[in-house]
Amino acid sequence: MHRPPFTVTTLGTGAALPARGRYPTSQLVQVNGAWYLVDCGEGTQERLRSIGFNFQRIGHIFISHLHGDHYLGLMGLISSMHLMGRLVPLTVHGPPDLKPIIDMQLRASGTYLRYPFHFQATAPVSGEVLLEDDRVTVSSLALQHRIPCTGFVFRERQGPRLLKPDRVVEIPTFKRTAVKNGEDLVFPDGRRVSNAELTLEPLRPRSYAYCSDTAYAPELLPFLRGVDLLYHESTFTAAMAARAKETMHSTASQAATIARDAVVGKLLLGHFSSRYKSVDVLLDEARAVFPNTVLASEGAEFPIPG
Amino acid sequence: MHRPPFTVTTLGTGAALPARGRYPTSQLVQVNGAWYLVDCGEGTQERLRSIGFNFQRIGHIFISHLHGDHYLGLMGLISSMHLMGRLVPLTVHGPPDLKPIIDMQLRASGTYLRYPFHFQATAPVSGEVLLEDDRVTVSSLALQHRIPCTGFVFRERQGPRLLKPDRVVEIPTFKRTAVKNGEDLVFPDGRRVSNAELTLEPLRPRSYAYCSDTAYAPELLPFLRGVDLLYHESTFTAAMAARAKETMHSTASQAATIARDAVVGKLLLGHFSSRYKSVDVLLDEARAVFPNTVLASEGAEFPIPG
Repeated sequence: MHRPPFTVTTLGTGAALPARGRYPTSQLVQVNGAWYLVDCGEGTQERLRSIGFNFQRIGHIFISHLHGDHYLGLMGLISSMHLMGRLVPLTVHGPPDLKPIIDMQLRASGTYLRYPFHFQATAPVSGEVLLEDDRVTVSSLALQHRIPCTGFVFRERQGPRLLKPDRVVEIPTFKRTAVKNGEDLVFPDGRRVSNAELTLEPLRPRSYAYCSDTAYAPELLPFLRGVDLLYHESTFTAAMAARAKETMHSTASQAATIARDAVVGKLLLGHFSSRYKSVDVLLDEARAVFPNTVLASEGAEFPIPG
Repeated sequence: MHRPPFTVTTLGTGAALPARGRYPTSQLVQVNGAWYLVDCGEGTQERLRSIGFNFQRIGHIFISHLHGDHYLGLMGLISSMHLMGRLVPLTVHGPPDLKPIIDMQLRASGTYLRYPFHFQATAPVSGEVLLEDDRVTVSSLALQHRIPCTGFVFRERQGPRLLKPDRVVEIPTFKRTAVKNGEDLVFPDGRRVSNAELTLEPLRPRSYAYCSDTAYAPELLPFLRGVDLLYHESTFTAAMAARAKETMHSTASQAATIARDAVVGKLLLGHFSSRYKSVDVLLDEARAVFPNTVLASEGAEFPIPG
């Protein structure tokens, strides 16, 4: 069955010091024509241009934490949106300290944004709803990092019930929305057909979880359980587990252990240390624990399996 | 005669909204093995990597003003220098408001720089000495822009006198530095050879002036007079003179008029509006006023004529 698109495009896969050809973290999430940006490392606006994406379509930007490789492209993007004549609102969701950083830079550059700009402070707690629009609910994840760091779970809103293909013709066009919304069909002569006869369960809402920078954090499992796609950082191999622990990052096998224990559909790895010229070693390590693992790459699009 | 290198590498030639293939403003100035960065738009560290330059060699960074296209790459560069283990000092010269912007972002990321970091506030006045080291004197220019904006003049320090090639053999090796510094040569038997007989005038110090973002500002002429290379922004053609005035930028012919009236050696144009897919129109316009004009381009190196 055709479902509306729900995709993740990984714009950068580098860690704090990107290797040549890798860019810092940013992801573009699309849910049926609505676009969300998740993290915004330096140069993100350039990456968006390079894939031919009109960034004025982004309505919400989510910043996980204030390490430079996750947010230093934000001011440039906010500013370019302004210079290109944006009038539609933009909401940035991020750590409270981000607000004065933005304000101070707008003030210093003498910029008065023409478009409505909203800031929503996040906290590194799990399960808090950050955004609920007509397409998704975005909630937070308490990642474990050296500074406050929030992950994000995107869940499609529950769609309407599906009309049984062989019963559609019985339902007058103007009644179909009501039936999809669960009402029985009542004819003018009083005849009633129960909703259950006419409809099927709605499509299962798909979900995507984003764990940008985090130590191995099994306390996240209840919040990740069953997501269709899990992005999890994978900075190091298991051989560097001590370094991972010290810097509060994850190894590939730790990321895969989270994926396995949360029974996710698919695991997407990124945030690769620049020491790995080829990241196949990270992929192999993760697949040994959780076979359905793929690697992020610059500009690659991943549909959410559904 | 071989002279030590004095070069300018233009890393980006775009204006506030860079066209595809153009990057925001940043320049690398080399004076005989010492490296200075002038402005630092978003992505500058990536540009420096792309030309294979080790940015740890930069000792001083000069920021002209706080429009994003001139400084949003600074935090990333400061941070990468730290992550790559820098221990040698770095001094940033820029508008006073830049200091709290840097401090706030270092604090938010929990970064304690390992290397000595110095900040020197600049003011938009002309002729103030900002730096004097063993190679150059850097002084300020009062550019005319919508927010405080400071240009920079790099002047080589006066070198020693030159030994006349045909007289060198007469001078004992251990006396040569003293003679270069202007002393007469006195032999143990009391015989004296005057310095004028043994030496030539020092090489004329070369100079480079940088006018990043500015309206047409003839009041700068006394400070630009006779510089060997003048970089002057050239955002628009003369057809857009009204727009240039309104945004406090310059047209190509205004830049060339400054170059002509200041009797500079060569004019280098940059900061091209994204409306110009080809910038030959800007070059032609400038050359009609000042023939010795060249265009900056991404990664191009310009030796200072001398």
